[in-house]
Formats: sequence, C-alpha cells, structure tokens
Amino acid sequence: MKRLVYLDYNATSPIRDEVIDTVTAAMRTVGNPSSVHAAGRDARARVEEARTQVAAMVNARPRDVVFTSGGTEASNTVIRGAGAASILISAIEHDCGFAAAKESGLPVYVIPTSDQGVVDMGSLQSLLAKAEKPALVSVMLANNEMGALQDVAAIATVAKEHGARMHTDAVQAAGKISLDFKALGVDYLTLSAHKLGGPQGVGAIVLGPTAPLKSLIAGGGQELSRRSGTENVAGIAGFGTGAMEAMVGLGDMDRIKGLRDRLESEIRAIANDVIVVGSGAERIANTSCLIMPGVKGETQVMHFDLNGICVSSGSACSSGKVKVSHVLTAMGFAPEQAECSIRVSLGYQTTEADVDAFVAAWKSIYSRTRAR
Amino acid sequence: MKRLVYLDYNATSPIRDEVIDTVTAAMRTVGNPSSVHAAGRDARARVEEARTQVAAMVNARPRDVVFTSGGTEASNTVIRGAGAASILISAIEHDCGFAAAKESGLPVYVIPTSDQGVVDMGSLQSLLAKAEKPALVSVMLANNEMGALQDVAAIATVAKEHGARMHTDAVQAAGKISLDFKALGVDYLTLSAHKLGGPQGVGAIVLGPTAPLKSLIAGGGQELSRRSGTENVAGIAGFGTGAMEAMVGLGDMDRIKGLRDRLESEIRAIANDVIVVGSGAERIANTSCLIMPGVKGETQVMHFDLNGICVSSGSACSSGKVKVSHVLTAMGFAPEQAECSIRVSLGYQTTEADVDAFVAAWKSIYSRTRAR
Repeated sequence: MKRLVYLDYNATSPIRDEVIDTVTAAMRTVGNPSSVHAAGRDARARVEEARTQVAAMVNARPRDVVFTSGGTEASNTVIRGAGAASILISAIEHDCGFAAAKESGLPVYVIPTSDQGVVDMGSLQSLLAKAEKPALVSVMLANNEMGALQDVAAIATVAKEHGARMHTDAVQAAGKISLDFKALGVDYLTLSAHKLGGPQGVGAIVLGPTAPLKSLIAGGGQELSRRSGTENVAGIAGFGTGAMEAMVGLGDMDRIKGLRDRLESEIRAIANDVIVVGSGAERIANTSCLIMPGVKGETQVMHFDLNGICVSSGSACSSGKVKVSHVLTAMGFAPEQAECSIRVSLGYQTTEADVDAFVAAWKSIYSRTRAR
Repeated sequence: MKRLVYLDYNATSPIRDEVIDTVTAAMRTVGNPSSVHAAGRDARARVEEARTQVAAMVNARPRDVVFTSGGTEASNTVIRGAGAASILISAIEHDCGFAAAKESGLPVYVIPTSDQGVVDMGSLQSLLAKAEKPALVSVMLANNEMGALQDVAAIATVAKEHGARMHTDAVQAAGKISLDFKALGVDYLTLSAHKLGGPQGVGAIVLGPTAPLKSLIAGGGQELSRRSGTENVAGIAGFGTGAMEAMVGLGDMDRIKGLRDRLESEIRAIANDVIVVGSGAERIANTSCLIMPGVKGETQVMHFDLNGICVSSGSACSSGKVKVSHVLTAMGFAPEQAECSIRVSLGYQTTEADVDAFVAAWKSIYSRTRAR
C-alpha cells in the first residue's frame, strides 16, 4: 500500500518506536502491581517509573498523578468527582467535557469565547459571581479543532478569587507546548497518552494536593483509591516513555510550526476566500483549521482520502455522526461556514513532502469546485 | 534472574505470545476508529475483528459486545447502569461488585452461600421476593479466590421469574470453562482480557439485545454510545487474539486440572490439617485455596516469594491492605482460619516442575512451623 500522508495527529498520533519497545518489553513480563511477590513488585516498579515520567512532563509530584483509561475517563472523573456545586465550562470544550458536565447533574454555565476562540474573561467573572459555590471551572488548554490556546493561569487566578476549583483538559496541549502544572495554578489537569505518541487506552489526572477527587470506577482501591481496576502496566509504561519522548519532541515544534505556517500561506495564496480559523489567536503549532467556503468538510475529507491523505472534519469522535462543529459556531461562524471546515494536524513524522501533497490536493479540490 | 515459578494466574496471566504479536502489529499502524479516512477505517476493522472474536468466545452477537478498560469498569457500568431498583449480590463477589453496588445508591441485598461457596437458592428466592423491583442479580460465574462455580443458568431462571435482570462476572471463568452467553440466559456478562492471556487495560460487557445500559463514561459516543473514549485499538485487538487463543487453550485444561489435583493431593499427604477451600464444590480447574492452620497467608506468601514462587493471599487488589477474605468468612471460616489461606492459580505455562517446587516449599514452611 502507498504510504498514507497522515495529517490527523489530533485524532491520534502514530505511536513512537520507543513507546512500542517499552510496551512490548512490559508485555513480555507478567505481574499485577497489587501482588506482593517478585512479579508484582516488578509490575509496580514499571507503573511507578511511568508515574515519575508523566509527572516530570507536567512538573508535578508523582503522587499527584492518577492513571486512567484515557482522557475521556480522566475528564469524566474530574468534572463529576470534584465535589463542585456548579460547572462552568468553555463553549469550545471537547464533547466529553460537556457530556461529563451534563452527567454531573449540576447546574452548567457555558463561558463564551471571542471570534478567535479565546475565553471571554468578563463573562467568566460574571458567571462565577452568579454560579453556585463552590464552582468548578473547566477550560481546555489547547483546542482540538483549531488549536487556540487559553490563558489558563489567568483563568485559574480568577477562579480562585471566587472560591472555585479549576480543571484544564491538556490532552491536545501535551507534547505540543511545555506544561507546568504548578505554574498553571490549576487544581486538575487531564492527559491522554495517544495524543502525544503513546498508546491508546491510557490517560492521567494530575491533581493538587488538596483537590478532592471521587473515584468514578469503584473496586479494589488501586491508585490510592482514586481509580480502581488492575493497572494497564504495559500501557502505563508506554505512556511514561511517550511523555519522555514528547518532552524531547518539543524541540521539533519549530520545524512543525514552519510546516504548518507554510501550508497555511500556500493555501491563502491559492484562494483568497479561505478562512484559517482562529489564526488571530495564539495556537498550538501543529494545527490548522481551514474553511473552504461552499465545500462541505465531509466532502473534502473524502477527496483527500482518495488521494491517500488523512485529515478530519471536526473532531474524530462520534463516528458516523455528521454534525456542525460546536467549536466553530461558538466562535460565531454560521453553520454553512462551519460545515465547510477541515482540520489538518501535523506531528513528528510530518515532512515537507506531506505538506506539498496536502496543498496540491487542496488546490485540486478548490479548483474543481470553483470551476463549476 | 532465576525463572519465577508463577502460580498467580488469577491475579494476572502471562500474556500469550500471539497476543503480543497482535498488539505490537496494531501499534505499528496509526488510526482512530472514529476517523473516516483510510487510517481510521483500518483501526475500525481491527476493533470489529476483535469484537467478533470475543463474541465467538462467549457465543454472543458481536454487536452485543461493548469494550471497556477492564473487568472493574465493566462491572461498574453494568451494576450501576442496568436501571435496577435494587441489587442482589452474592456474598463471594469480587470487591468491585460490592463497591459498584454501593456506588449505585440502591438497596443492596447480599445472597449467602453454602460452606462450599455456592449461592443458596432458597435465600435467593426470598431476597428476590422482598427486593425492590426490578432487581439486578449479580453472581460471579467462577470465584477468583477459591474457584467455586455457580449454576448461573439456574440463578438466571429464578431471577427472570421475579422480573429481575441478571449479571454474571465471568472474569475468572473465561478461558477456564466454555462460555455460552445465550445458554446462561443472563442479561449481562463481564470479561477481562488480562485474566485469559490478553493485555491488561481491556475488558468487555456482553449484553442481551433488550438489556438497558447507561454508559458510565460519557463523551464522544463511541461503542454505540455505550462507552465513550477513543478505543484502545491495540489492546482490543490483543483481547480478540487472546479470546481465540483462550478457546484453543480450553483443550489444555485437563492437563492443568491434573497438575492442580496432584498439588492438592500431595499437600494433603503432607498435612492432615490442611483445608482445601471449596473442594466440595464444582471448581474451575486451575485454582486451589489452601489453609495452613496457624500460619498467616501473608507469611506464607513471603516465604514462597523468597523461594521464587508467586502465589497470593486472597485477591490481588487493594495493594498493601491486609484484610481477612470476605469470601472465606462468607463460607463460614473463622477469621483466624481465613487469614491462613493462600491462593494458588495455575495456567498455560505451568509445568510439573512448578508444582514440585510449590509442594516442596509448602512442605518446608509447614514443617518449620510445626517443629516449633
């Protein structure tokens, strides 16, 4: 098969070779970390090494890292288990944030954003003033669809002034920007391994020493009773290696930003009606959300696919559902604009040739639809 | 390092080589099953193949299999999400069953067992008569600590007569006995991959076509909205291979039963005060729970560990906690007897030499303590 041009890193990243080696080596040993014998202790050591590695990536204490089955479980656990009386959630959060807020049964307030997808601080203030206390504020660090970064430290400061706790979904930020749990000043930060080159099926909650957390999954009391179930030792070990590699990989982000910026400028040179969503905001360097007016994102994705290029329209969840992006509508785009967007997300294996292939295919789709 | 004699399969099984190959191959490709492009479709195909394989192992329809992060999440989802008005749970369930029942906030009734660990049908009947309707009955197929099998089909029939739904935790039964979801007549059956030679961090719920199920983890709506979160593609694929290998492995259970039976008869020949827990019940063939009166299980486990032999006292969960087994006390053992038990669990790699090593070590511990 012809090599695919994979430009959908925000859906899932190719797993790094070093991670595959770690996971495979861990699978070749046996042990339940809760067993007291030699095999159990070996498994425990692998889990604790990974905890130290993930903690290092975000400048947190290892004991404040709780492993989960992924970002969705992590966000569900925090949003439903923080002991809040109300939830304030930004209009551009991932679906799992909204779904978890709904499941909590608590009053939910949506914080609007600017037309560049940046949380409106005035609205945050007034919502915090009226929301049931203590509130939990949940604002993602980097958006999955168009990459906008939020000033999470500033939001956390405002939240604290109102006695609220703060959660940031850092799933798309990890591995793309440097993370500092302490400097962000949040109470909870959630991570997913497979977005940064680790294995699927593993995530983490990082939480402050005084932040309450009710376990979502009850049972044997693993993870200091914060998440029950036998630990996924090999997956967790792979997450640890992935975290280490992702930290090294930050040195590659300038190159990736160069590729992304060239991609956008070449597209702009082809079509003056293209819209680069959120380009007025500070963004993670790998993500580009492009609106080709009049051509549905689904149609574009299929054309790219026929050319061996993998991109997405909106987020990768909710397979089969075609729905207009709530992120783009929150930014003020009309549904007929929002539905013409695609997301291009680059990563550590992306090359100049990949960008060339994408630009050529984009141009071809654009020209054909404009010629009609 | 000297090869460990691993006799703790019920805590976690060595991962089968075929599974490691499948997981590694899946990790070398990239894709989110919810993506519509070629990479996503490839990932989707791996997940659906595994769904067919796991369904085949339990004689269910693939569409009735929901993948989770493990047995604990699966049991939590069923027990809390079946829409019941009360929970009837056997006295010998795994900790996660009790914890999930407690989390449900519903009235919980504990079904007692005989001194051989078999659910008492009379008590089941009278509890069903008085419990809030509709009830959910949760009885494990095979016990993790001493291996007793329950007549789940008969229990399901009684449950149905009272308008109750039935869940069976088949985590320890899978790969040790042949499973038939339809013949069992249950509404829910839960599985864990790592107990049958698959990877840790993957499990499944099998449910009847009309059985309600509220998702525990909310979000993108994966698994037909029954379990959100990006699928653990490599882990799920490994579960599929593990299920296939476990079916083949049933042919090895006579050999394993021979080893277990020899182990027990040699121990009995050494010590006439040894108690083989549950030996009067039908048991899975790989498990032996042995009480050495006067010698705490923890002490025995440490002695075995010093001899390079891995066994456990009670279940492997709740790391660090030393507590008396609720399973053995439910069977009528006094705490001072129950705390002197160890669990020996054999599996596909177990050899005659492993049994010899265990018996020799058991004899040495026994002789030393008796000589005092």
